[in-house]
Amino acid sequence: MDLGISGRSAILLASSRGLGRACAESLAREGVSLVINGRNAADVDRAAKELSDTHGVEVVGVVGDSTTVEVHEELLAACPTPDIVLLNGEGPSPALFDTITEEQWAETAQRTMISPILFVQRVVPGMCERNFGRIVAISSAMVKSPNAVMSLSHGPRLGLTGLLKGLSKDVVKHNVTVNQLLPERFDTGRQQQMAELAVAIKGITLDEARAEQVATIAAGRLGRPEEFGDAFAFLCSAQAGYISGQNLQLDGGSYEGVF
Amino acid sequence: MDLGISGRSAILLASSRGLGRACAESLAREGVSLVINGRNAADVDRAAKELSDTHGVEVVGVVGDSTTVEVHEELLAACPTPDIVLLNGEGPSPALFDTITEEQWAETAQRTMISPILFVQRVVPGMCERNFGRIVAISSAMVKSPNAVMSLSHGPRLGLTGLLKGLSKDVVKHNVTVNQLLPERFDTGRQQQMAELAVAIKGITLDEARAEQVATIAAGRLGRPEEFGDAFAFLCSAQAGYISGQNLQLDGGSYEGVF
Amino acid sequence: MDLGISGRSAILLASSRGLGRACAESLAREGVSLVINGRNAADVDRAAKELSDTHGVEVVGVVGDSTTVEVHEELLAACPTPDIVLLNGEGPSPALFDTITEEQWAETAQRTMISPILFVQRVVPGMCERNFGRIVAISSAMVKSPNAVMSLSHGPRLGLTGLLKGLSKDVVKHNVTVNQLLPERFDTGRQQQMAELAVAIKGITLDEARAEQVATIAAGRLGRPEEFGDAFAFLCSAQAGYISGQNLQLDGGSYEGVF
Amino acid sequence: MDLGISGRSAILLASSRGLGRACAESLAREGVSLVINGRNAADVDRAAKELSDTHGVEVVGVVGDSTTVEVHEELLAACPTPDIVLLNGEGPSPALFDTITEEQWAETAQRTMISPILFVQRVVPGMCERNFGRIVAISSAMVKSPNAVMSLSHGPRLGLTGLLKGLSKDVVKHNVTVNQLLPERFDTGRQQQMAELAVAIKGITLDEARAEQVATIAAGRLGRPEEFGDAFAFLCSAQAGYISGQNLQLDGGSYEGVF
Repeated sequence: MDLGISGRSAILLASSRGLGRACAESLAREGVSLVINGRNAADVDRAAKELSDTHGVEVVGVVGDSTTVEVHEELLAACPTPDIVLLNGEGPSPALFDTITEEQWAETAQRTMISPILFVQRVVPGMCERNFGRIVAISSAMVKSPNAVMSLSHGPRLGLTGLLKGLSKDVVKHNVTVNQLLPERFDTGRQQQMAELAVAIKGITLDEARAEQVATIAAGRLGRPEEFGDAFAFLCSAQAGYISGQNLQLDGGSYEGVF
Repeated sequence: MDLGISGRSAILLASSRGLGRACAESLAREGVSLVINGRNAADVDRAAKELSDTHGVEVVGVVGDSTTVEVHEELLAACPTPDIVLLNGEGPSPALFDTITEEQWAETAQRTMISPILFVQRVVPGMCERNFGRIVAISSAMVKSPNAVMSLSHGPRLGLTGLLKGLSKDVVKHNVTVNQLLPERFDTGRQQQMAELAVAIKGITLDEARAEQVATIAAGRLGRPEEFGDAFAFLCSAQAGYISGQNLQLDGGSYEGVF
Repeated sequence: MDLGISGRSAILLASSRGLGRACAESLAREGVSLVINGRNAADVDRAAKELSDTHGVEVVGVVGDSTTVEVHEELLAACPTPDIVLLNGEGPSPALFDTITEEQWAETAQRTMISPILFVQRVVPGMCERNFGRIVAISSAMVKSPNAVMSLSHGPRLGLTGLLKGLSKDVVKHNVTVNQLLPERFDTGRQQQMAELAVAIKGITLDEARAEQVATIAAGRLGRPEEFGDAFAFLCSAQAGYISGQNLQLDGGSYEGVF
Repeated sequence: MDLGISGRSAILLASSRGLGRACAESLAREGVSLVINGRNAADVDRAAKELSDTHGVEVVGVVGDSTTVEVHEELLAACPTPDIVLLNGEGPSPALFDTITEEQWAETAQRTMISPILFVQRVVPGMCERNFGRIVAISSAMVKSPNAVMSLSHGPRLGLTGLLKGLSKDVVKHNVTVNQLLPERFDTGRQQQMAELAVAIKGITLDEARAEQVATIAAGRLGRPEEFGDAFAFLCSAQAGYISGQNLQLDGGSYEGVF
């Protein structure tokens, strides 16, 4: 399937590893030139080189925390008129609800709700003028299935969900779409870390920890990052211009609710 | 119907006027002693006197901005072990999406998402210990129907929606329920102000402005504050202990979606 | 709280036992005259006598299957201009998805989707003319959380959910509201039967079977029928006229989703 | 993007015209051999020939009403082990809610809810055994946004939505996914007919009638069938195996609700 975006340009926040990297991979394969980003210079350089070598597209790496204005500036300097934007960032850690402080709430809200929307504010007017835009946020299945111990994650992210939905209604007439992907348990470094944490805390084996992760997924397996990347690429395609304001769950069919 | 809460105590944020005041009225009628709150001392004093005179319950007024820690302290000093808590506050004004600044996002997130959840963190442990609690937030129909021009309102409020839902799952086993009411166009001072604003801006008559408000409501009328107050009182009742994590829309049947 | 419906009249389908009976009890207490219904004459007679004796309201019993046109006729003969209608009926039994026959699908659709909507079609025009109506259906939590083994239940019932929602938008302007209650595990005869079935099939004790039922409910207990009845009565109240098209879950806070 | 389904086989109900035909086109392009279906022999023959000529895949046409057991038999005779199934059928016409008869309810339930699920019952066990299956239903945006005048459409279709969701949870572990596409106003013959109907009834021009259709869509245009076909093809892809139980709206971003 030709996604009709060869020659387009994309800025992908937090894309040197994990799901963000998988999104970069799928776009590069389609001939999209990329600005990728991550906090670790070695990761960013390696990813940029691999993507460029494999797919023959231009890839610029911007090192730094994607929730800062400085990095936003650098990203836009590298690609002033992006056609495609991936909103992504490191998810907050679990925390006991009762113990979360005002500073933690505020900092997390800044990082996961306010910072992405500030970046969106900067790119949307140009997308509307140019009559093409694809904004996709990597959110979490938890925005539909909140869980108190992940409050720092799902609360602000659900706020972002609403902001993006509201915005989507205004800009779709300019062929600018705004959608979210809601992953649940993909086989990335994060799940590996969480499994190792479970080994340390619970005294179980790594296999047992991995089995526990899988047990929560109706599909009976973790998702593969490349499955995620291709769903992202599809939402970025030319022919996805009639799909906007959607929250597509990539959760191995695990969500309980009918909608 | 006996709501089974006579003799209970409640803290009602932002309850000297409008929907908050209507909630106070319905609880007072049921024999609940109240701590009410508002930013204008005259409003608070008048409301406290009227509620106490009419219903013969104890009513304490706390003057101040309910989004501040100082007012939280005063409210809890006046009622250290509340059985019922109403989360409420002034809604943000409309704003053009593109023009909203980082400071506005942060301030609004603090006022409408973080501040209420901080207050919830303080009252929930005691409610769980005492095996009774009813927390109800006045949110907005917009959390299910976002609209870019109201982003400052629906974004953080949807974040709060998620936080309360996640929490609700953990505390319902202690007979502590957490629900939201989602109003759309009640006949309060706020709608009157908005109508007057429309008169000034659009050069229409007040009757025309009021008719425009009604036109968006399937019921063909605005809601009456006392209808809102009674729905709130029902969710606070002893017999509503099996209802939690719900977002009840009071919108004259206007919401488009099936769920 | 005065529900403002004393002197009103109601037709309550399948109301001689269980949740329907609890609804009858709450309405009778509010001074509503009732037409109740059930398939067992002794049950109906006993319920009618008890309701009438306890609450001093007129109660007529109609014996028969509430999914038939004949019983619809009798109910409307007993109360030609009902103000309130409860849609209720026996839920279908579990069935292996693969084994359900066309006849079972069709019969269940008739009983749980078509028959209630036919009754609604008969009462709604009069309610609109008289400018008061409260229609409430007892559905199931499964309409939001489908489960293949209960397909005969949640499928047609979700169809009914949509039909009632669509209708609600048209009639709310006549002060006719249409809502659903979505129960999950109330302590009625049905749960008792299901526990006894589990005893027989699994070789566990009754206490164990009851504990298994409770384990699925976040509240850590089954619901009490009178809690259900009072939620129903509230939705039938005069002051609930601004609430329509809602699906209120009475599930001990168990539903996973944010909406 | 390689969808990984070249050489797979599909049965596509009601696929000789409109959105079904667009789905056939997108699958054929990916190298999937097809069994297509429609009620008009000339349409089916032409579509089969065009698809085969253009894409070089095997295409078998089955003429007849896809809601009948006879046609199900023929489809399965032509392709006993389908990897992909499209559920589709002609949508019911508008009807005044009050005037819909029991026969109309029953017939529509049979055609749009029961008949598709009977076909699903036949193909799912084999898909589970073979460890690959993609079932996609063309539903309607109305299942999330019911409208009384379209009750015959959205009611039974919402029932089907629940049945498919329930089923999806059980079969995703066998790499069998079940999803729905919810279109709103695509530029097919049906919209053309409805525009012509509006010309006849309202005395407006065809351009005006078309403009009215577009006015309800946030994107400011109708959808293009090939956009629909490609979304379908993506959900049928090998890499979409982690996406199940989803209801993807293709509505030009028009849906009001956040979820």
